Formats: sequence, C-alpha cells, structure tokens
Amino acid sequence: MTGIESAELERLHAYWRATNYLSVGQIYLRDNPLLREPLTLEHVKPRLLGHWGTTPGLNLLYAHMNRLIKLRDQPTLFITGPGHGGPGLVANTWLEGSYSERYPSVSRDERGMRELFKQFSYPGGIPSHVAPETPGSIHEGGELGYALVHAYGAAFDNPELLVLCVVGDGEAETGPLAASWHSNKFLHPERDGKVLPVLHLNGYKIANPTVLARIGDTALGDLMRGYGHEPLFVEGDDPHAVHAQLAATLEQALDALAAGEHPMIVLRTPKGWTGPKEVDGTPVENTFRAHQVPLAGLADNPEHLAALEAWMRSYKPEELFDEDGVPLVELTDQAPEGPLRMGAIPQANGGELLEDLRLPDFRDYAVDVPSPAETSSEPMRVLGTFLRDVMRDNMRTFRVFGPDETASNRLQALFDVTGRTWQAETLDTDEHLAPDGRVMEVLSEHLCQGWLEGYLLTGRHGVFNCYEAFIHIVDSMFNQHAKWLKVTRDIPWRAPIASLNYLLSSHVWRQDHNGFSHQDPGFIDHVVNKKAEIVRVYLPPDANTLLSVADHCLRSKHYVNVVVAGKQPCLNLLGMDEAIAHCTRGIGIWDWASNDAGSDPDVVLACAGDVPTLETLAAAALLREHLPDLKVRVINIVDLMRLQDDSEHPHGLSHGQFDALFTVDRPVIFAYHGYPWLIHRLAYRRTNHGNLHVRGYKEEGTTTTPFDMVMLNDMDRFHLVMDVIDRVPSLGSRAAHLRQQMVDERLRHRAHTREHGDDPDSVKSWVWPY
Amino acid sequence: MTGIESAELERLHAYWRATNYLSVGQIYLRDNPLLREPLTLEHVKPRLLGHWGTTPGLNLLYAHMNRLIKLRDQPTLFITGPGHGGPGLVANTWLEGSYSERYPSVSRDERGMRELFKQFSYPGGIPSHVAPETPGSIHEGGELGYALVHAYGAAFDNPELLVLCVVGDGEAETGPLAASWHSNKFLHPERDGKVLPVLHLNGYKIANPTVLARIGDTALGDLMRGYGHEPLFVEGDDPHAVHAQLAATLEQALDALAAGEHPMIVLRTPKGWTGPKEVDGTPVENTFRAHQVPLAGLADNPEHLAALEAWMRSYKPEELFDEDGVPLVELTDQAPEGPLRMGAIPQANGGELLEDLRLPDFRDYAVDVPSPAETSSEPMRVLGTFLRDVMRDNMRTFRVFGPDETASNRLQALFDVTGRTWQAETLDTDEHLAPDGRVMEVLSEHLCQGWLEGYLLTGRHGVFNCYEAFIHIVDSMFNQHAKWLKVTRDIPWRAPIASLNYLLSSHVWRQDHNGFSHQDPGFIDHVVNKKAEIVRVYLPPDANTLLSVADHCLRSKHYVNVVVAGKQPCLNLLGMDEAIAHCTRGIGIWDWASNDAGSDPDVVLACAGDVPTLETLAAAALLREHLPDLKVRVINIVDLMRLQDDSEHPHGLSHGQFDALFTVDRPVIFAYHGYPWLIHRLAYRRTNHGNLHVRGYKEEGTTTTPFDMVMLNDMDRFHLVMDVIDRVPSLGSRAAHLRQQMVDERLRHRAHTREHGDDPDSVKSWVWPY
Repeated sequence: MTGIESAELERLHAYWRATNYLSVGQIYLRDNPLLREPLTLEHVKPRLLGHWGTTPGLNLLYAHMNRLIKLRDQPTLFITGPGHGGPGLVANTWLEGSYSERYPSVSRDERGMRELFKQFSYPGGIPSHVAPETPGSIHEGGELGYALVHAYGAAFDNPELLVLCVVGDGEAETGPLAASWHSNKFLHPERDGKVLPVLHLNGYKIANPTVLARIGDTALGDLMRGYGHEPLFVEGDDPHAVHAQLAATLEQALDALAAGEHPMIVLRTPKGWTGPKEVDGTPVENTFRAHQVPLAGLADNPEHLAALEAWMRSYKPEELFDEDGVPLVELTDQAPEGPLRMGAIPQANGGELLEDLRLPDFRDYAVDVPSPAETSSEPMRVLGTFLRDVMRDNMRTFRVFGPDETASNRLQALFDVTGRTWQAETLDTDEHLAPDGRVMEVLSEHLCQGWLEGYLLTGRHGVFNCYEAFIHIVDSMFNQHAKWLKVTRDIPWRAPIASLNYLLSSHVWRQDHNGFSHQDPGFIDHVVNKKAEIVRVYLPPDANTLLSVADHCLRSKHYVNVVVAGKQPCLNLLGMDEAIAHCTRGIGIWDWASNDAGSDPDVVLACAGDVPTLETLAAAALLREHLPDLKVRVINIVDLMRLQDDSEHPHGLSHGQFDALFTVDRPVIFAYHGYPWLIHRLAYRRTNHGNLHVRGYKEEGTTTTPFDMVMLNDMDRFHLVMDVIDRVPSLGSRAAHLRQQMVDERLRHRAHTREHGDDPDSVKSWVWPY
Repeated sequence: MTGIESAELERLHAYWRATNYLSVGQIYLRDNPLLREPLTLEHVKPRLLGHWGTTPGLNLLYAHMNRLIKLRDQPTLFITGPGHGGPGLVANTWLEGSYSERYPSVSRDERGMRELFKQFSYPGGIPSHVAPETPGSIHEGGELGYALVHAYGAAFDNPELLVLCVVGDGEAETGPLAASWHSNKFLHPERDGKVLPVLHLNGYKIANPTVLARIGDTALGDLMRGYGHEPLFVEGDDPHAVHAQLAATLEQALDALAAGEHPMIVLRTPKGWTGPKEVDGTPVENTFRAHQVPLAGLADNPEHLAALEAWMRSYKPEELFDEDGVPLVELTDQAPEGPLRMGAIPQANGGELLEDLRLPDFRDYAVDVPSPAETSSEPMRVLGTFLRDVMRDNMRTFRVFGPDETASNRLQALFDVTGRTWQAETLDTDEHLAPDGRVMEVLSEHLCQGWLEGYLLTGRHGVFNCYEAFIHIVDSMFNQHAKWLKVTRDIPWRAPIASLNYLLSSHVWRQDHNGFSHQDPGFIDHVVNKKAEIVRVYLPPDANTLLSVADHCLRSKHYVNVVVAGKQPCLNLLGMDEAIAHCTRGIGIWDWASNDAGSDPDVVLACAGDVPTLETLAAAALLREHLPDLKVRVINIVDLMRLQDDSEHPHGLSHGQFDALFTVDRPVIFAYHGYPWLIHRLAYRRTNHGNLHVRGYKEEGTTTTPFDMVMLNDMDRFHLVMDVIDRVPSLGSRAAHLRQQMVDERLRHRAHTREHGDDPDSVKSWVWPY
C-alpha cells in the first residue's frame, strides 16, 4: 500500500513541526519555551552552539519511520550519521516520551521543555551531538564515516531488527563510508536483520557543496546499483509533496527488504529546511550557510531576534502543545509504544541484552609444558582451538572479525565450525566460504572495526584479529569507541557492554617477508592515552598465557583489551597452572630463569612480549653460564598496566609492590615489545626509575630475519648481556672478556645472516636458549 | 589505431616472459640465474619470501605501457597498488636499464642478474615490496589503500604527465581506496595531468576471493560509472588474446583521456598467471593459493624443485638473454629511453624537481604588539594572510588541503587569490568554488593526506589543515609516509622532498560546540614515535610565533612538521622580533612574565600551547599579586622536541642547557597542550625530572566553555597556583589563604558557568590575565 490519507499526512506534518520547533528551541532558548511572551534577549542563550542544517531532515525521517513502525510492528534502530543533528534526536525522543523516562527531570511539560532547551550544548548540560547520552543511540556522529558500518554491525544476528541508517552527504565522502555500502554482501537474509540506508542529500558540508549532491541522479543511481543497492529517490522542498513521496517510498523500501532486496533511499531536501530563507539579504535555507545557527549576533541585531521569533512561531507551537506544555495526544499517538519507540529500543542499550558467553574451560586447550622452554608451539594456533569452541557454543552472539588474516594469523581452527561470511558467488577452488559464516573478513580494517563496534553496542561479543601495524588504520575509531565507553560508564541507565578485544598478531618482530611498512607496535602507545578505567594491554609470552588472557578478556565488560601475541613457533614457558597464576598477577619473577634465589639480585632483567622474553631468557642463560656469581632476577610482564602506579591505573602496582620486584637501586634491563619510551612513560614515578634501561623497537627494520630484527634494534640477547655488563659496576675482567665476546657474536651473526639468509639451522639457533 | 601486428605482439610477449622469469628468479634463486645447469637446492634460497600472485599482471601492464610510451612519447608514472608485486617492478626496471643506473653493482648481465635474484627479500638486500628503494616508485604498497589517491596527487599541476595506477582488487576493498575514485572530480582538464586507473581483478586476497571480483561485470560497471569513470574491460587467460585486447584498450583509454574523459580499465586475469597450475593435485593458478610462493618446501620435496625448474624454463630464458646474461636487444628496444623509462621518470624522484617556494617576508604579516598580552588576534586568520601570498606567488607548486575546514580554520584569506577545486556543477549560492582552485577540500582526511603525499613526492609543496582530533584518521598514513622519509634519507639517489606540513587547529581546548568526540591531542604522541630525524612538533602560542614557525616549516625539507595553532581570539604576546628570536631558540624564559630577575627562581612555570600559555601567564600574575616575594620563572616552549635530550633528537637541549632553564632542584609546574605524560616521556632523563609536575588534557571533556574545559582537566590558572603552593615548601599562612581562595574561585567559576553559560563577559574574563 503506497497511498497516504491527507489527514494522516497533516498529522505527520504536525509531528514534524513539533520536532522542528523543539530543535530550534534547544539551539536558541534558555527560557520562555512556549513563547508565551514576546521573545527577548533574556530568553536566548548567551552563546549559540548547535547545528540546524541537518536537523529538519532527521526529524522528517524519524516521524515517517514512527508511522511505519506502528503500521508493521517493526522494531527499528535509528542511526544518525549526521551527529550534529543532536537537537533533532533529542526532540524526537522527548516527544515520544523515551527521553523523560531516562531523564525524569526533563519531563514532558513546560518545565521539562525549559530544561530540555537550556541543557542543550550548555555547560553541565548535554552535548550538541547525538551522543551516548541520547536515548536510542549507539552512534556518536562527531567523527564522520561510521554510521553505515555500525548499522550493519547492529543488524548481524538480529533477524527481527530493521536498522534505518541516515547517511549525511558530507559523511558519504569519507573512505570508511564509501567502503561501507558493500556491507550488504555480508548480511544473511534470514539470520541477520535488515539495513535501510538513507542518503540524505541536503547538498552541503560546512562551507562547500557535497560531491554526491552534484554528480546528478544518473551517476548517483549507477553508484548505488554498483554497490548492490537499488536506489529510491525522494526529492523536493514542498513539505506536503515530500511527505507523500517519502511515506510511499519507505513502504516500498520495507517491502523490498522483506523480499530480500537491498533498497536504499536518496532523500534530497534543502539544508536547513523550514528555517530562515535568507538573513541580511543572503540566502540561507538550502545553502551551506544553514549548517550551524542561521541567525546569530542576536544581541546586536534586533531584526535577527525578531526573525528567530517568527521562525519559531511558524511551527505554530500553540497547535502542538497544551497549556502545560504537554504535547497534544494527536502527536504522541503517532509514536509507537514502549520498546518500539526508537528511543527505547533495547538494542540501543546493548548491555541490557548482553548475556555472558558460554565459555569452554580454557585449561582444556593447554599445551603440555614438561619444563620451561623445552617444547614449542604457535600460540595463535593454540588459541584458535579455544576460539573454535567458543564459536561453536555461541553461534548467535559471537563473531570474529579480521581483514583477510584469520588463517594468516593461525586461527584457522575456527573454520572447523563456521565459514567466512560470503553471500556472493562461490567457486570450487574457494575455501571456507559460507553465507552464514561467522568469521567476517574484508580487506578493510575500518569495516572490521565498525561492524564489531555495532555488534558489541547492541549486546553481543567479538574479537578483531589484525596485523599489529595496520591496526593504526582504526586509531581514530578506537578513540571514539573508547570515548563512548568512558562516557557511558557514568550514565546510570547505560548497562556495560562486552569488551572490544583486539588480537594483534603478525607483530613487529616477525615481519620476515613484509618488512618495514608492516612494523609498528605503536597502537599500544595510542591506546594508553585513553582513560585507565577503559584500557587494558596484555603481552602473553607463550601459548598457555595467551589462553588464560583470552579467557579473561572474553569474560570482561566495557573495556578495550589489546592482546599482542605471536603466531610463529615460540617456546612454551609455563604450564597451565603457572600460566594462570602468572596472568592473574600480571607480572612476576620467574624463579626458574633467575638465580638470585630470593635474595637481592645484582641486576633485574625484565621483559614483556614473546620475542623480548625469548631474548631475555637467552641473555639470562648466557650470564648464568659466563658469570655464574652474578645474581640475576628475571621478571616477566603480561599485563602492561601493572607498571603504572595504582593511583593512575586500577591494575597498577603500589610503589611497595613495584620496589619489591624491581628493587630500589639495582640496574633493570627491560626488553619490551614496542617503543621503549612507553615503559618510561608508564614507570617514571617509580623509585628505581633512574636505573631503568629499556630496549625495544626503535623504528629500525626491513625485510630480514627475526634475529637480524632484534639486532637492528639492539634488543638481542648479546646486546642485553652487554647492557648488563655496562651497568653492573666492578664485574671484573671476566665480564670485560664476555662483553667482547658478545660484540664478536653480533658481528658473526650479522655476517652469517647476510651471507646465508635465514636457513632452518639459523632459525633453530635463534630460538635456542636452554 | 587499435590494431597490433602479430609480430609486435610476439615481441611484447617475449618481454613479458622475461620479466616473469626475472620475477620468479628473485623469489627463488640465489645462484644459477640463467639455469645454465640443472636446478639444485644449492641454487635456491633457504627461505622463500615473496609474492608471486599479483606479479604477472603488473608485468603485463608495465610491458604494454612501455609500448604506449614509445608510441606517443607520453611521460608516465607507474603506481603499483599491489606492493607485494615488488619482484615485478624490480624486474622491469632492471630490464629497461634504470635499475642498474641507480644500482651499478646490479648490472644488466649474468653477474648482475645473480645479485638481482639474491638481494630480493634477503638480509642486507632489498624489501619484498615496491619500496622507496625501487626506481620509479613513489608508493609503498605495504599498507593498502592509497595507490589511487597518490596517483591523483602526482597528477595535480603536472599537465604533461600520465599516471597509470594499478589498483589491486584486495586494496579496492579499503575505505580510502573506495573514496579515491571520486578524485576525478578534482582534476583540472588542462592544468593537471591524467590518471588512468587499472583495477586488476585477479580475484583473490591472501585467503579469500575479493568482493569486486564476484559482483559481476554489470554491477562493477555501474559502480565505476557511478564514480564517474567509464570502464573498459579486458579479460582472459590466453596470453595472446589478452595482449591484443589490452594493447587496443590502452590505446582507447589514452584517446579517451586526451578527449577529457575519465576511462578506467578492469583487467581480469588469473592470479599467479603462468605459474604452476596445480601443486600436489591442488589448483594454484587462479586461486588464492597463488598469493605468495606457489611451490614451497623444496628441500623436502624434490618434485617441487623440479616443478620450479620447469616453471622457470617455460619462459625460455635462452631466448631472452644472451650468453652473458644480457637481455636481447629485441627486448631492450621495447623499453622507452632515458627519462621516459618508468623507472627513470623524474617525477618519481620528486626531490630532484623540487624548487624552493617563493616566500614573501613573513615579517610583513606581523601583528603589532605594543606590549605583551595587550591586544589579541586570531593566529590562524593572521597566518591566512601569509598563506594567501604564498599561494599567489607559487601558483603551480603549492596547494592547501583540508576536509572542508579551511574557512572554519580561519584561513579564508586564501580565497582572495584562489578558489576551492571544484569541477562539478556550481550554483549561485556557492562560494569560492573554481575548476582551477588550489584549495582542495573534501570531507575525507584520507584523500587530503594522500593527495598531499602524492603532490610532495613528485616535487611540490603543501599544507594540510585539519581539526586536531580528526588527524588521527590518518595516523597510519602518516606512519607510512614517515617510514618513506626515513628510508629515503639513506638512499643516495633519492633527493629530499618538501616537508609534510600539518596545521592542526580547532584544537582540544576550543571545541566549545563540538565536545568530547572532537577533543584529542594525541597525534603529537603518535608522531614522536617515529624517527627523530623526521619529526618536528611546534606549538606557537600566538600569531607572530605562528608566522615564524610557518615560514620555517615551508622552507624545510624531508620532515613531517606538526603545528598546533589556535583559531580563536588569543592574546598577542610577542612582537615579531621577539617571536623570531623565541622560535629560533624554540624554548625560552619570558622575562616579562617572570619575576626571578635572572636569579634562582623558587618555582618554574613552563607552558606549551596557546591555552596552557594563557593559563600559565594568568597563574604567574596571580602569584605576583598575592605572593610578591615568590620568585617565578616562566618558560615557554614552541619547539616541543627541545625537551628531549640532544642524543635523542637533533633539536634536543643538552643537559646543561636544560638545567639552566628548568633548574636542578626547583618545582616545575608545566601546563601542556596535550596528554601530560608525553612531557615525562620526553624529559625523563633530565636532572630535575623528579620535580616536574605536568598538567594537560587528561581525557575529560564535553560541550562546554573553554574555561570549564581547563578546569575539568585541572589546568586552569587557579589550579596551577594551587600546584605551586603545594610544591613550594614553607610559603606560610598567606599561601594557605591564597590556596583556599583559589579553591573558592574554581567553585565560583564552575557555578557561574553552569548557571549562565558562556556569555561575552565571562569569555572576556577568561581571556584576562593582565
């Protein structure tokens, strides 16, 4: 059915007028919300901060979607790409009642309306964007580009859900958004929900036209069809004509979705529609000038104040709200009820729906460790067997995401129980593709991250496995997600969601055939700038510690967990019981690698990360062999945040604990996985910081052997021994001799590598320490 | 003309066979390059590291492009999106002679061929990717997504140039690449060069099919037309048929480019074409299994060794190289000559073409500063007048890039001399759009960064202005560019290029109406992880210092300069002479704000960044008023790297210099623009580090007033005074009283802000310090 009665259309139009009125009120007013008296400067905010331009379009779509929800009982999540349309979403949720349920002091009456207006973009009030504070939102539109990928993430494994995703034409110019349209190839017709993208072409960014608004409908239609979406055009600047068109088109789109098609809507309406046509003789409506506040400088400009009043009165508030400022029932009746209201849909507060994963006992996947460093395994491959069974037992609430690297990262056991999500053509020579696959691979870190965010925010669990260097591609998306977690932690009605788990492999030290462009351990540095309550960093040195860490991360909530783990063969160091104990402490002395026998050591060798741990153990062995009287303590760190003090991070060690481990006056030679200065930044307050000497990746690399890599960065076992000798006074001539031996060893190894490459024997000798 | 003689086709095919042979040789052999004797394990590298899959397609395109270059004398830059095709580009440049010109030891004969093979992906040799070491390259394909945007960047202001850009179908899934296709709207038909994208659909990524390979030609054609490109399809697995088709299609494409159209080629050929059809009974050619080395485990598998020999002999090397291993003249004749060879094109070594900018005297743009902090201006607006004239005087070699924020960032003076680049439809209500505009705005930080990189790498100059928070979107692109600069610094034939200048405004402290999502100063932290020889960070505190810094950056070469500057009204602190002196030192005591009169201070107040400087000056004024006996030294830092020691960074202060400024034992209260721990990371080796107390952004923010922002992060003037009192012992009861006053002031200000918003008076009172 595509007709709409004119009476219904009138009611819809009134609803739209109401939300437009409430939006303008938020941007401008701090008093006189119903315009009971003539508008004066006293009623207006001293500083006008907000964005009108995108708002009327959002209000239009929300009103029309309400109608469809009621018609079809269709649970719908509304995703607002143009986050600057904050006033619109706040207005709509207030009008439907969901806002006041979350914020009772902002009641649905005149007093509440005054509060609604004043709080907007006001100190101590609410942000100007669609934000975590906004009921019904899983998406902060401040940094543009991720609306559509969040929409798809929300739809996965939510077969009953429709996600209406408004994409601004500014946002549509970003790379992540341009790639997101292809997400339709990863949506299963039965298992997953539906996504209806609406490209809102209001034509302008801050100061410019948008690209997609000026390429013409033919090219735009081609583009959307090329992306696999069937475009439906709605266009106009006459409200009544647009209402009729949009209502019909939305119904058509929902029918198409139900038929398994991929429609999308191009909505071309003026920027700042229904706002001032012009200001001071310059056109405003339908130009870039409508982006923020069309009328400004009210204090110095009485005509602007009058124009504002006329603008607001043009919505006829007296026909929309009763004497007490309560919206008329003809309006509120148009909104759906209860959880069908888009401000109250449970999926937008995913923590409320979150169920713990059913986790098999990770101990069952342990590798046998008869004694430390006797056997070896590929930690990521071992983890794969655990993740396989996590997947098997959580086939509706768990997914693994990665840019075509799941097998490269050695997690292929997953393919025993599920495939790679793939709806397109499949050939005989393909492997592990399946329309209902739950491993989501696409060569876009942006899509992997965004899908996972949408999936987590709607109450599910997941893991993002990625090459370590290229996780920087989503630095900025991580920022925004960490900000979301930080803010929602303090919003009482927002329930905690599952943690975002990064599993970074193919790390900096093992880019044997990819080289310098693939070498960057700096994501950890990036992550630790965010709030301590949110971020966790783990560097398990072997297979069993990785299992223990992974189990912990999958149980945790509302964190970002960064786990860096090796995929190459690596010595098994700890049996499962020891691994659990070590991971629980997060940091500890390894007695079996130390010879200080509980007394004061002469030197501390600390390490974090699989390769640094190997080199440290080898250095300790060299020292034991050549300088048996030197008392060496070996400390391994799994939980990097233990290094910070307990006033800075909840995982931080107290100063007493730290001093007991690292001593207050002995040299500490620290081999670290990443950039060495991060350790100083974490530990600068520690008593013994002056004796802390850190080796790590100092941006030296190329396509070369793993041992050459540690040598290039002075983190090899030989150099660590030299560091010890240089820092422990009066070791005598034997040490001087050993130091020279180490220098010679390095030269010999370098020459050998250059001449012979990396033959199996030299790899073997590299792994050796015991 | 679209025909090609069969004899010419045979010659082309021989050329292709030769480059394929040379590519396989690089991946596998360390000896016996001409297969003069039967292949044994001795001849094969002990570890096989390389990527065959994409290589034959690259070789095919290179050979065909050679033909066109010769036919049309068309200078052409070849951009290799699939960077893993390193062996192909190395093979081609060796065959055409440009490789041996750069690397004489890799001569064009048997000895050189042996070296060519052995060095590839070998310790001490060359990277496996198309890398800075590869002649003719401006693009490292390790991190995928930027090939096409680099291509357009190279074409701007290069009217004679054709850029042939091979886009891998894996890379095509990334966001930045998906957005890059729209770059055609920013290319001027006369002023700029031509770009011919070739989407190489070989069908597979590492372990998966690619999306674009499986959507069918209809959708793919729609997609390309939607992007504004006319697709030309070349498809097949019979070499001779493909040769004929490709030769004709390339000619057609060049004709279309000449006619001002935007053709692109879809080249659908098998992955690993001409390699082993199957290995151990499993299909390899034309599957994902051809991605890396199709034949492995040669030591344990004599059949694989035999298959490798058969594969290499299938190219008939004896018909391609003479007795001395020199390529036959029938081959070398097919390559263009001199700088028309794609390995020798000057634009690929942009530093050689680089001319200094013609810079007006920046002193002429100075604001008058009768005395410090008496007047105010918007630093970015002042800078805009300088940049306007830089633009005016360098209309072929300078561009400004930004995501629709040039005016928002107050650089609108630029529009006095040029417009925003815009080829599409223009309406009356638009402003400053021009087909030949030189301010490039698109709402994609990826495109801005990539265009600028391509522009710089081909020997021109530019500035990227961006909101501070969102520059994180290109963290990863910055990484790759910094790596490129680091590596090329040590390649003798690579001449230095112009610096990449970031101008970050709309910074963390002034997001009054955008709030938390727009607040992130961490790009600096990210940048300083890269090599000290490459990175520079400047925080000019006012208009004149910004001018001085900008002039310096525009003259510099081969750096990444990060300049953080305010766009809001800000006190003018230094006259131009003082500004130059201060910026030249990079750090200095401000006597006019200090009262230690050259003697030992009781406390040091240090500051970096405009807002921290304002708060520090205000705190110093409060201290002077209330505790006149307290000797306060105010230090301002413009050049952040001065804080590191001179062994770590070329700009670093010696320990003696640092101690002379910061004392060895007095409290230092440091107000810093960004995350406070960065200062500790830079200064942890300093004598007085234990007394260093840093305030900065600690991830607390929202939509609020600027003064509320500094209060939220404890960096406000009142808190700085409290910090001083807490750290200077025995100040007595007057200090205790002042401390309580400061606590009260903060409460009063917080309450005032919450009640009254940010009215003009409170803004005024915020700016006050003197």
